[in-house]
Amino acid sequence: MDTNEQKLLSEIEFPSDLRKLPLETLPQVCAELRECLIDELSRNPGHFASSLGVVELTVALHYVFNTPEDRIVWDVGHQAYGHKMLTGRRKQFHTNRRLGGIKPFPSPQESEYDTTTCGHASVSISAALGMAVAANQQGADRNVIAVIGDGAMSGGLAFEGLNNAGTTPNNMLIILNDNNMSIDRAVGGMNSYLHHLHTSGTYNRFRNRAAHKLADWGLLTDKGKKRIIRLNNSIKSFIHNQHNMFEGIDIRYFGPQDGHDVISLVHTLRSLKELSGPRLLHIHTEKGHGYQPAVEDPTTFHAPGKFDPETGERICNNTDGMPPRYQDVFGETLLEMARRNKRIVGVTPAMPTGCSMNIMMREMPERCFDVGIAEGHAVTFSAGMAKDGLIPVCNIYSSFAQRAYDNIIHDVAISRLHVVMCLDRAGIVGEDGPTHHGVFDLPSLRTIPNLTIASPMNEAELRRLMYTAIECQDGPFVIRYPRGNGIMPDWRCPLEATEIGKGRLVSEAKDSGAQKADTAILSLGPIGNTVQKAFTLLAQENPTTAIPAHYDMRFLKPLDSSIMEEVAKKYDHIITIEDGALNGGFGSTVLEWLADNGYSKRVTRLGIPDRFIEHGTPAELYHIVGLDTEGIIKAIKA
Amino acid sequence: MDTNEQKLLSEIEFPSDLRKLPLETLPQVCAELRECLIDELSRNPGHFASSLGVVELTVALHYVFNTPEDRIVWDVGHQAYGHKMLTGRRKQFHTNRRLGGIKPFPSPQESEYDTTTCGHASVSISAALGMAVAANQQGADRNVIAVIGDGAMSGGLAFEGLNNAGTTPNNMLIILNDNNMSIDRAVGGMNSYLHHLHTSGTYNRFRNRAAHKLADWGLLTDKGKKRIIRLNNSIKSFIHNQHNMFEGIDIRYFGPQDGHDVISLVHTLRSLKELSGPRLLHIHTEKGHGYQPAVEDPTTFHAPGKFDPETGERICNNTDGMPPRYQDVFGETLLEMARRNKRIVGVTPAMPTGCSMNIMMREMPERCFDVGIAEGHAVTFSAGMAKDGLIPVCNIYSSFAQRAYDNIIHDVAISRLHVVMCLDRAGIVGEDGPTHHGVFDLPSLRTIPNLTIASPMNEAELRRLMYTAIECQDGPFVIRYPRGNGIMPDWRCPLEATEIGKGRLVSEAKDSGAQKADTAILSLGPIGNTVQKAFTLLAQENPTTAIPAHYDMRFLKPLDSSIMEEVAKKYDHIITIEDGALNGGFGSTVLEWLADNGYSKRVTRLGIPDRFIEHGTPAELYHIVGLDTEGIIKAIKA
Repeated sequence: MDTNEQKLLSEIEFPSDLRKLPLETLPQVCAELRECLIDELSRNPGHFASSLGVVELTVALHYVFNTPEDRIVWDVGHQAYGHKMLTGRRKQFHTNRRLGGIKPFPSPQESEYDTTTCGHASVSISAALGMAVAANQQGADRNVIAVIGDGAMSGGLAFEGLNNAGTTPNNMLIILNDNNMSIDRAVGGMNSYLHHLHTSGTYNRFRNRAAHKLADWGLLTDKGKKRIIRLNNSIKSFIHNQHNMFEGIDIRYFGPQDGHDVISLVHTLRSLKELSGPRLLHIHTEKGHGYQPAVEDPTTFHAPGKFDPETGERICNNTDGMPPRYQDVFGETLLEMARRNKRIVGVTPAMPTGCSMNIMMREMPERCFDVGIAEGHAVTFSAGMAKDGLIPVCNIYSSFAQRAYDNIIHDVAISRLHVVMCLDRAGIVGEDGPTHHGVFDLPSLRTIPNLTIASPMNEAELRRLMYTAIECQDGPFVIRYPRGNGIMPDWRCPLEATEIGKGRLVSEAKDSGAQKADTAILSLGPIGNTVQKAFTLLAQENPTTAIPAHYDMRFLKPLDSSIMEEVAKKYDHIITIEDGALNGGFGSTVLEWLADNGYSKRVTRLGIPDRFIEHGTPAELYHIVGLDTEGIIKAIKA
Repeated sequence: MDTNEQKLLSEIEFPSDLRKLPLETLPQVCAELRECLIDELSRNPGHFASSLGVVELTVALHYVFNTPEDRIVWDVGHQAYGHKMLTGRRKQFHTNRRLGGIKPFPSPQESEYDTTTCGHASVSISAALGMAVAANQQGADRNVIAVIGDGAMSGGLAFEGLNNAGTTPNNMLIILNDNNMSIDRAVGGMNSYLHHLHTSGTYNRFRNRAAHKLADWGLLTDKGKKRIIRLNNSIKSFIHNQHNMFEGIDIRYFGPQDGHDVISLVHTLRSLKELSGPRLLHIHTEKGHGYQPAVEDPTTFHAPGKFDPETGERICNNTDGMPPRYQDVFGETLLEMARRNKRIVGVTPAMPTGCSMNIMMREMPERCFDVGIAEGHAVTFSAGMAKDGLIPVCNIYSSFAQRAYDNIIHDVAISRLHVVMCLDRAGIVGEDGPTHHGVFDLPSLRTIPNLTIASPMNEAELRRLMYTAIECQDGPFVIRYPRGNGIMPDWRCPLEATEIGKGRLVSEAKDSGAQKADTAILSLGPIGNTVQKAFTLLAQENPTTAIPAHYDMRFLKPLDSSIMEEVAKKYDHIITIEDGALNGGFGSTVLEWLADNGYSKRVTRLGIPDRFIEHGTPAELYHIVGLDTEGIIKAIKA
């Protein structure tokens, strides 16, 4: 949308265009960019409030630094829409997050201005340090800038990066974008620490300016500058009862500074560009800045869906009578069970709203633990609680649980601790793309001894599996389920146990007059509902066709041997279907069982092939990988 | 060994016995415990210097706290031999690390005094926080104490735990055992940070005593005490140009204190026991303390093997003419290649000696990066360097690489970055037991798109795979190899490329007069040498027996289709063999290939079954899981 009101922005195709503008026009560029973001995002949903908060920073960075030769490393990438618009992608931005369109996060495959694969938090410092060290080794004088939010600073990887940044020779600049938020509010000591650092901005500006002036006049060596900064920080920490951990690990600290004053940001960045060694600029921004509805409710406006740009009213579809989201079934069921059993506690790494643990959190906050973006800690902390008699239900998005892989093995599985892991967003997630699809959990987890692993085909099954995992188990139990809605408007079934390792026959095979049903389909999880739809279509197409038997295996581990025996004896052809990676997954488990038990069968495996799946709607992506009714019918007929 | 000189120790079966002794006898208990450790470890090898360093701390903890009701959480567990000796295991300690004997690390399966599965670093704070929160939820007044070394503090998980400890209600005591070491010397900002904290011990003692006296006299409230501590810390940081990050994240800091003065440790721990809320005691110890050879060379004496207790002389077997360790082949080959190609850099998370990257490090320190115990960062940092044109060779022990699982997926594989991952200690590692066996790498990594995964059968193959990965590839490449010696005394073959995805025929099938060879064995990695030994035994046993064909597949991914076609067409029975978990591993890959290509074959898979394998010698463990000549012969005959 290039309106009259966006006359500056319409001239900016690339950052080189931006850099031709006079400094004093930058506030206008920011206003236009913000307006453009609001307009685009109101019509085509995406991550919203984060990008609004860094409009000034984005403009200042591309104005001061020589991108793409200078490297900007965004952390997570929620906040990079403004960056995308200034780097050749404004006109295509209406395709954002759509199949074949602009990618949901920065990606080097899309643009040379995108330096790393984004999507997961806390990565930027480590990756940027790698680039800064490469520049150093090559004698290149590129600048490398990591931009990380305070929420992402709670991740251990960010600390590991910081810990090395102070000791490895490099010229990295870290920008700590402090908005007191991750997606929900930021938590943890680091957060309160940063809050206290927000003290005397004036004092800091004075200190930095004084040091730079002295240096400009040749009166201050680099070593001298460092001493002054240290001394001043010590005085500041004395005055404010606070201490600067960044200086403590040999990273020079500057700030805090107002992140919405683009002119002064430019001045600061220019000064910092001239310094060498690792340094950190702490800026304060407001998530959703410049759009009042987002400022007032930044969690909702993290990814609000469509909304009216004038009023901020969200344009929601009517969901009356619709099946619930799996998330809400999880959240409501957890609360229901927690009311009955005091040993149950909830653990989430920064996703109380996303996974609906906020339902329990509202009623019993003292029994829910939002540990911040710290998946590894979430699991090991749960292990500690389980060791001493609590029953932790630890909910992590499947793709983020990749970060807790060793914690699940080392801290939970070896000791057989009763930790219930609920893996949300398992399978294809849609528009968030390859970093967020939860498709590696089945192969990577099933190789770990002592785990029970299950996936419910519908909401009632989820409730029963949760009940079973929490009340009928004394070892680790993993339940995976997808993002989005189930199939049962009336889902509040009684809480009853399911026998561990037992699947169920969903529909019997139907011979046709001419044709004996020689095929059995084994499914795991909600993708089983697509099998049932395929059967309906198949019968509509040809009412006399044979229909395979369909079993919902429920458990990946242990696999139901009695169903396997039955299927192996009765059918010639077995089709397995899973919403996960084929390499080593559920179908592979079925192959192992058959080989180990001396059966040689024809087996067709449907699932995610051996490549990263891009973004698009779930329906589009299921179609592409053959996990829709068409793919299933094709496999049946083959 | 209960000699006359160990008259106090010989009376201590459990900590309750220790607690009956008068305070002034504790230095003698420590001396006896240290002597006992030196004696035991000189004869039966194990982790040595770490345990010597914490003798006084161990005695003081069990003296002050009511273990096992109070929980001591050891980090890593290298240092817990003294703990084991004081908790009912002294008389069995000669079985340490032996099959069926005392476990290599603390384990709740072995003793109620062991609170967590130990082996991997940086876990203790998160696990202890879980226990402290459980105590809080249950209204129990148990004490929970985490003991963590400064090396382990570089791990992100430790930071995630710290970050939460300050904000979640708990009474945890963290003891930071600062010996300026992990296994090699500790690195990173945290290390230099702690070094600077080592300032005025006298001053701190005065401060703490003063505060406690005032409190004892009822003149100081908890809040008042906190203020005094803060003020004092600020003054200290002002004086010493240093800042205390622990206080910054709301964990009360005490210390530093001499960790070898057992009497004053007891006094301090008694005072700290009376306080509430999260608190940290920083003690300084010397790795190997009390045994001069270990103090002088703590890296060697981390796990020295057998040695003469009088002189410290290590009792080494003569290795002249022996095949080299895979580690040395890696280290020498890396240096050789790095001399020719300036883009090569080395990355290790705290294991330069263990993985032999120290060979390159000595000659080109500026091109090697020891990032501390920070496996996730090691991989993401490598990704950043690869992005800007370096060729990082990142060496991580297989079981520790579990901690970098998401980094491999998200930061390396999606962007197809040219990072060479060398997974050392893959497969059964022997005496270090279940936390250290590297048996989950094949299933968990092969499901990740874009990875090439290989394992060499011998030293020459390792050299060729390294050459291929570094010089002939532009995407991520994983090479796994085991701990210990290879089979080729003369291993310095020319550096040549191997075709990616191509295996090789090791030995042809041999029909006997009576019997046609109907079996092919497919192996991956050095376990293939056991197959060859089995053939020799089989032929000795019965010279007319048929011998299977043997293929070394070299690559798990991509799997060699032409070998697979050949084998599927020529043989009725396929035996796969791998030094890794059977669930989803190499054999499973073979099953998938056969199913996907329409072959129904009898397949026998040899590998690690679905349980955690305990400690023992590699030979003992291979025998237990059927990965020795006997197991292979049995599979051939079946």
